[in-house]
Amino acid sequence: MPMRHVPVSLTRSSIEDHFWSPKIQQMREVTLPVQHAMLQETGRFDALRLQWKPGDDQPHPFWESDVAKWIEAASYVLAKHHDPDLESKVDAAIDLLAGAQQPDGYLNVFFTVVKPGERWTDLLDAHELYGAGHLIEAGVAHHAATGKRTLLEIVMRYADHIASVFGRGPGQKRGYCGHEEIELALVRLYRATGVSRYLELATYFVDERGQQPFYFDLEDAERPSPSYFADEWRFATRAEEVQLFREYNQAHAPVREQADPVGHAVRAMYLYSAMADLAGENDDASLLEACERLWSRLTGRRMYVTGGLGSSALLEGFTEDYDLPDETAYAETCAAIGLVFWAHRMLMLRRKSSYGDILERALYNGVLSGISLDGRSFFYDNPLASKGAAHRHEWFGVACCPPNLARLLTSLSSYVYSHGDDGVAVHLYVSGTGAFEVGGTEVTIRQETSYPWDGSVKLSLAMGAPAEFPLAVRLPGWCDRPSLSVNGHEVDLASVTVDGYAVLDRAWNDGDEVTLDLPMPAVLVRAHPLVSAASGRGALMRGPLVYCVEQVDVGVDPLQVVLASEVTSATTGVDESLGGAVTVCVPGHTTSLVGWEDELYRSDGGPVLEEAEIVAVPYHLWANRGDGAMRVWLRSASSTGEASRSA
Amino acid sequence: MPMRHVPVSLTRSSIEDHFWSPKIQQMREVTLPVQHAMLQETGRFDALRLQWKPGDDQPHPFWESDVAKWIEAASYVLAKHHDPDLESKVDAAIDLLAGAQQPDGYLNVFFTVVKPGERWTDLLDAHELYGAGHLIEAGVAHHAATGKRTLLEIVMRYADHIASVFGRGPGQKRGYCGHEEIELALVRLYRATGVSRYLELATYFVDERGQQPFYFDLEDAERPSPSYFADEWRFATRAEEVQLFREYNQAHAPVREQADPVGHAVRAMYLYSAMADLAGENDDASLLEACERLWSRLTGRRMYVTGGLGSSALLEGFTEDYDLPDETAYAETCAAIGLVFWAHRMLMLRRKSSYGDILERALYNGVLSGISLDGRSFFYDNPLASKGAAHRHEWFGVACCPPNLARLLTSLSSYVYSHGDDGVAVHLYVSGTGAFEVGGTEVTIRQETSYPWDGSVKLSLAMGAPAEFPLAVRLPGWCDRPSLSVNGHEVDLASVTVDGYAVLDRAWNDGDEVTLDLPMPAVLVRAHPLVSAASGRGALMRGPLVYCVEQVDVGVDPLQVVLASEVTSATTGVDESLGGAVTVCVPGHTTSLVGWEDELYRSDGGPVLEEAEIVAVPYHLWANRGDGAMRVWLRSASSTGEASRSA
Repeated sequence: MPMRHVPVSLTRSSIEDHFWSPKIQQMREVTLPVQHAMLQETGRFDALRLQWKPGDDQPHPFWESDVAKWIEAASYVLAKHHDPDLESKVDAAIDLLAGAQQPDGYLNVFFTVVKPGERWTDLLDAHELYGAGHLIEAGVAHHAATGKRTLLEIVMRYADHIASVFGRGPGQKRGYCGHEEIELALVRLYRATGVSRYLELATYFVDERGQQPFYFDLEDAERPSPSYFADEWRFATRAEEVQLFREYNQAHAPVREQADPVGHAVRAMYLYSAMADLAGENDDASLLEACERLWSRLTGRRMYVTGGLGSSALLEGFTEDYDLPDETAYAETCAAIGLVFWAHRMLMLRRKSSYGDILERALYNGVLSGISLDGRSFFYDNPLASKGAAHRHEWFGVACCPPNLARLLTSLSSYVYSHGDDGVAVHLYVSGTGAFEVGGTEVTIRQETSYPWDGSVKLSLAMGAPAEFPLAVRLPGWCDRPSLSVNGHEVDLASVTVDGYAVLDRAWNDGDEVTLDLPMPAVLVRAHPLVSAASGRGALMRGPLVYCVEQVDVGVDPLQVVLASEVTSATTGVDESLGGAVTVCVPGHTTSLVGWEDELYRSDGGPVLEEAEIVAVPYHLWANRGDGAMRVWLRSASSTGEASRSA
Repeated sequence: MPMRHVPVSLTRSSIEDHFWSPKIQQMREVTLPVQHAMLQETGRFDALRLQWKPGDDQPHPFWESDVAKWIEAASYVLAKHHDPDLESKVDAAIDLLAGAQQPDGYLNVFFTVVKPGERWTDLLDAHELYGAGHLIEAGVAHHAATGKRTLLEIVMRYADHIASVFGRGPGQKRGYCGHEEIELALVRLYRATGVSRYLELATYFVDERGQQPFYFDLEDAERPSPSYFADEWRFATRAEEVQLFREYNQAHAPVREQADPVGHAVRAMYLYSAMADLAGENDDASLLEACERLWSRLTGRRMYVTGGLGSSALLEGFTEDYDLPDETAYAETCAAIGLVFWAHRMLMLRRKSSYGDILERALYNGVLSGISLDGRSFFYDNPLASKGAAHRHEWFGVACCPPNLARLLTSLSSYVYSHGDDGVAVHLYVSGTGAFEVGGTEVTIRQETSYPWDGSVKLSLAMGAPAEFPLAVRLPGWCDRPSLSVNGHEVDLASVTVDGYAVLDRAWNDGDEVTLDLPMPAVLVRAHPLVSAASGRGALMRGPLVYCVEQVDVGVDPLQVVLASEVTSATTGVDESLGGAVTVCVPGHTTSLVGWEDELYRSDGGPVLEEAEIVAVPYHLWANRGDGAMRVWLRSASSTGEASRSA
């Protein structure tokens, strides 16, 4: 099972898109400078000078990860744009990291200055290896973007140090990190350097996870007082608590025996991403099988319609099948980003549109909702309903989400195309280009589209000489009736579709055009009958976008909105206050509050319904127009009993 | 505004009832002995010997309250039953309390042996005054039940000590307890002893609460590290945290300025109970006004249909108007008990059926659900829906609910009748007797009923001589068409009903009979349109009982149940496995899971509906027949779109 595809890299692809380009530009002009200022203000840069002394505010054990993700995102920008100011800020940050690195390669401020004797004693909680992973990703990205080896060499020394500490050899620690990240980072480092030691270390970390005796139990037993958090779980037995804690870190069983996605959702996504990477690199069928099982359970039972993950705020993670509450959804921005990472890796192993569909679902909904229209503020959690008190924030004490969004969006062009022995694939619909080589011939695909507002896509091929190769074009699962033409001739999709991709295997010539038409009527999506928050309700979708209803548009709490049981006569509009977003308008009703002023419960019939036009906006754009309630799941089964009492 | 009514006391009333007597007998025979054993096992009695030394497990600062509530409940039993074994256990516990009391009257083990220098330094959290309050209630109850002054004198000494420490005098602490309880206890102690100092201290505690500067802020500033729990509220500002914390203890504003019920629900109920007591005792119209405003906001916006209170488990309390989630409802048993306490006190001030209705709603639903059929195990929280993993427990680390239930049920007869200058009132329908005096004539009311399974009630009057007085009979708000006869002659209710009570003002003779008929068809109750968990759903009620659907009866998750929009053809049954409870059966549908095996979201229509008989059981009896999902709010608006696809 060789790894089938590699992404068309950032330097070989570009985005010139009405939808994405302004967001990416905003990242460069607004978001990254704001985040740099926050790193400065909050002392994250200063901490790297190692000047801390007892009595000062303590640096956090995972502050390096925030700096690293910012460098990674900035590097992706530098790969595309000459920006001397940004480059000098990156170089300055790398200088600080260089100064904080210890002679043996170790690089974590907290365990260097605050608790110098306690390195690697709290793998469960302290995030040392997590921070190392982000530093490594930053080092690889910085090198690829700028050609400079400054940070790459720092992180290689750190990785070498880690390889000396962890493993199954004599005197080595047989541990792994509570928060996965180092695993996928080491695969990236291996791919960038070719040093197999890094791949082996990643393999060790993944394989060792969940083996008995459980490392975190052993570590906990060494502590003066146990870290397992007894108080939080008032009624659980000790055994239940320990199990919960192991699951929180996906360390309850060896990874190949894990079936249900459990625990902290971001940790889970980073682990599964590494598992997919290693399944490919090590040609490991059992690991791929575990990935596919986890994928099926996740997307079939534990994923929000927005691609958000994590039902419990307390756990920041998964609970049980079909438990997907809307108002209290955690759906951390980083978890949706993690799902994009994992889906992309699965797609590189197996070209199935189901992977691309989920990647797209998470990207356009649960990821993008994390950032405000102006690029300055962020949601940590992304609920599917709100009573109106939700605001994005500029920064957080645990500030993982803002720079994570930045590094995803600034590297987005590398998610659009991939290539392998079996040709080229187009996974996402974003205007721009992707370039690759077929048997010595340079081929460029230029894509033009108004996606996600419109489903027409034109792919133009440019090449020095004719070339024969399969071009695979994703047919999104949300689209009932796609059509595709090559140079104006319609293709019979039924005969060329494999795993949801139209595979156009032919001789291509310079100037060939593929046009794809993806009609995107508004539809009403229903959830599995055991999803309580969606029972008797439906969500409006149009194309890849989940829509929501905001109080600002309908004048009442969206809880009062009742849609018909089917969408038969939707119209669309354009909202300039939402950056030209396409809105959806459907006829429906709202429940009247008349008669309920002082009543909480009544047995004389349900609320009276009044006819109303219901305007819905893309979910990712909610909470950009002041306060007000919001809701994705809307009552959709019109009640005959209620309808007969309508005003 | 004199206090209008006093309860017909425990010693002047009796219960001989098919529904309640077995429960009260079980309290005596099972629950109290089991709880005594738990107090023993968990070290709560032993702690009172003051033998603790560093290194031992620490007694909890509020362990006295558990012992006290058990003594209080046991005393109510002793008021009715000669039980030498129970009496000797009570006496032994009181001996232990006597031995633990300090020379100055102070009585709290934790601050005597574990942190002897820190008395009254953590009013916010340490529950010292709360424990004192429960000791006082126990002392009053024990004295009233047995005539013994042993515990009463202990608690008077303690109360005298507290009165010396707290107040507005020089050198006194101007504080109050984070968890209210001492206030209502001091009113009881005043009523039992006539010592006005106790009433004045209760008045001080209630009036001082929420005055500026905020006492808890001052106390927090004295601590080495602040107690306000910054970590729990990740995204709140410091100012928001402090406000949340003040509200948690109802200390955000002077009590007369409080409008919305906020914070910890049990604390709120105990405070409002004391406010009602003081409104009566001090003839304080502004306090009564505050009570009425809080009552209206609570019952009109923040109360579960079961009488449960508290939407947030984290806060153990209130959130915002209409936020009443079902699966995550906290609805602590003690909060529903507290609502009974408050409602009863309001009823003594103002004879309005709305107070009696809420008392009844909480008692028959949110309170009774707290205890298992066998009397051995307890719910701390009482959600209105469950996926099936809910179990009652024998005991809790914080064990407030089990003995609280015991003291309420063993004193229930004192909630049935009351009397005052304006005659006698019958508030609850429970077979048994109530005795009182009218102008020197002894009158006894004997009540016979099969309530809550049937709404026929017979009241027989026995008296030595004829007497003229008003007899007020509550007409429950749930009943549309009550009828009432005196000696077989139907009374025109419209002409005699005042504030929901039928007031029968006439000369009564020995042998007179009042018969009340309260038809109780099953009805579908709807919630305010802004209650998300109930939107498009309804709850079955019959008489005072809220019903629920359990998986064990319908064979599917109750989430799949869809009722018609009205209940037109309900039948009833009797379930012997639930102690002869009346069940309700209505025609309805269930959604099919066919076609959803691997699907979480679909846009091709909602689930297919299949016809089904839906059996519902009283909510308070849920989770007595093994595992399985449960739900109070059931989809009730039949969807035309779905119905047309039914199998």
